[in-house]
Amino acid sequence: MTTPALVLASASPRRSELLQRVGLTFEVRPADIDERPLEGEAPAAMVERVSLAKARAVGLSLQGPHLILAADTIVVRDGTILGKPATAEEAITTVTSLAGRAHEVITGYALLREDGRHVAGHCTTTVRFRPLTPGTIARYVATGEPMDKAGAYGIQGIGAMLVQSIEGSYTNVVGLPLVEVLERLPELGGPAL
Amino acid sequence: MTTPALVLASASPRRSELLQRVGLTFEVRPADIDERPLEGEAPAAMVERVSLAKARAVGLSLQGPHLILAADTIVVRDGTILGKPATAEEAITTVTSLAGRAHEVITGYALLREDGRHVAGHCTTTVRFRPLTPGTIARYVATGEPMDKAGAYGIQGIGAMLVQSIEGSYTNVVGLPLVEVLERLPELGGPAL
Repeated sequence: MTTPALVLASASPRRSELLQRVGLTFEVRPADIDERPLEGEAPAAMVERVSLAKARAVGLSLQGPHLILAADTIVVRDGTILGKPATAEEAITTVTSLAGRAHEVITGYALLREDGRHVAGHCTTTVRFRPLTPGTIARYVATGEPMDKAGAYGIQGIGAMLVQSIEGSYTNVVGLPLVEVLERLPELGGPAL
Repeated sequence: MTTPALVLASASPRRSELLQRVGLTFEVRPADIDERPLEGEAPAAMVERVSLAKARAVGLSLQGPHLILAADTIVVRDGTILGKPATAEEAITTVTSLAGRAHEVITGYALLREDGRHVAGHCTTTVRFRPLTPGTIARYVATGEPMDKAGAYGIQGIGAMLVQSIEGSYTNVVGLPLVEVLERLPELGGPAL
């Protein structure tokens, strides 16, 4: 039995790095999908739906046996989804709202085969920020790192200095719950690591 | 008031990377110190003692105002300290003993000024491994990654695929509790980030 070609439906260099790190071979085909929540949709349901939509969008342009992996990461504080900041001011507001307290990072993932078989799931990690001064927040935002990231920070980058502790999967906060995804790959004929 | 020159008393590239990432400037001066526990010594007391001993050893060769940072990381399972594996066989035994369960990573750190003022502390993170097959463990050890690492794995490397979840500081597992150290640097005249 041959293993189907693995396709990562994401432009995130962080997701690529995690898969490369464990020796997986894959092709990158970013999906262009509207990531906004539906009216009344729970965060966990949203990230699974969006992940599957990303996988399906990429699947339309593929031929032959393949296994698509898509993911969607959001940051939730007090039940509110915090998106990617549009401006530096918005980034300052978001990081300030996370300082000295805990929030949740939820990553949804979907695996989709060429015959339509699929699995989807999500993983939640609690992240606690240390108390931050306005000066520290301003310097962090000035690095530019928050601008393309959900919740306006990157735990694998300079943002490591903001995070006091986490509870759950670390790679989930980076953008892909590596162990959960590795454990589900074989269900659809993917590699078993 | 000028900030004293920061000196990292560690050969660990992972510790250097963490400090560089947050923009700190420092010199690397590895300490050559016996890291074995004393008879009856508790793990947390040991890592603080060894950290301070490393800082003092490096301080002997330094002149002028300086602030030395030293650290010592150990992995503890059922009260037993797991050191760096001497052979691939030992690495297989160690990783096997961690599979499917939780252990603790304790990093001690010490900051030492040229006038003898110092602070020391430690940070504990609970790490849970996923269940692992003998095949997965053998492939991991064959990468060579476990050989220079306490507990025979590196969470920031391929070892990410072994770790289901953590509770506490992630950078502590990498080898330096970044936030704790950043918060204590100003106590001895170091930079406030």
